[in-house]
Amino acid sequence: MNKEELKVDPIKNGTVIDHITAGKALQVAEILNIGNTDSEIMIGLNLSSQKMGKKDIIKIENRDLSKEEAGSIALISPGATMIIINDYKVVKKFGIEIPLKIKKHIVCPNPNCITNIEGVKTKFELAENNPIEVRCIYCEKKYYIDEVKFRF
Amino acid sequence: MNKEELKVDPIKNGTVIDHITAGKALQVAEILNIGNTDSEIMIGLNLSSQKMGKKDIIKIENRDLSKEEAGSIALISPGATMIIINDYKVVKKFGIEIPLKIKKHIVCPNPNCITNIEGVKTKFELAENNPIEVRCIYCEKKYYIDEVKFRF
Repeated sequence: MNKEELKVDPIKNGTVIDHITAGKALQVAEILNIGNTDSEIMIGLNLSSQKMGKKDIIKIENRDLSKEEAGSIALISPGATMIIINDYKVVKKFGIEIPLKIKKHIVCPNPNCITNIEGVKTKFELAENNPIEVRCIYCEKKYYIDEVKFRF
Repeated sequence: MNKEELKVDPIKNGTVIDHITAGKALQVAEILNIGNTDSEIMIGLNLSSQKMGKKDIIKIENRDLSKEEAGSIALISPGATMIIINDYKVVKKFGIEIPLKIKKHIVCPNPNCITNIEGVKTKFELAENNPIEVRCIYCEKKYYIDEVKFRF
């Protein structure tokens, strides 16, 4: 770990989400429903980073992320990396792939979409890469990722 | 500072909001509009605390809080303390008083309230202390503090 990463204390067991785009950590925290957990959590915003200038970071004690949670984080912050910690040691470190299809976890902002009217589970697909946009396969509307809400 | 407070690195200049009720830090972060600042920020959730069992903490580099911001934080987390840091030293440490009147910064949840219809600035008063409830002086409806949104 480099100097910047040490700005926040190490955790014993859990997950570190590093290299989050600066300013995006609170959106990531929302995806992870962090307000409703008992685990010890550290969120760092606008930390200085040699690689990125500024970055955010989140450390969560005693939690593994699901593939769907990781995918949603990649949509919000494509460059984020995951670090799995066990007994203070890094056991795995990897980038997160941006998913091409997103089932269930994005709420369609279109109030007239069938997913909102009839409670059908949403299905979105990746529409644009930079900046990221997603398209609802039901109403076919396209949204910037910052316009949608996630629900887990 | 005790051992728990050292779990998050010290800041050089700025404000520490300590002894936030566990789980409330993200609401406090919202009041402070933390997602839209460039300052280095650390948010700790569910940290162990001798005094409180669990607590949250927020550290913000290079920022003073206004009286209104501090008052809103007291409504969300009545036991919070403020620590002003200058050149790594604590220059002031104090509890925050729960305000009896709250002008402008609470959005009335009642869509029919004149403050929402005619854009009149809101005025709320403290209605109950434990748990905290506030009353809109226009429509006279009473709300738990977790039901209202703050706007700064």
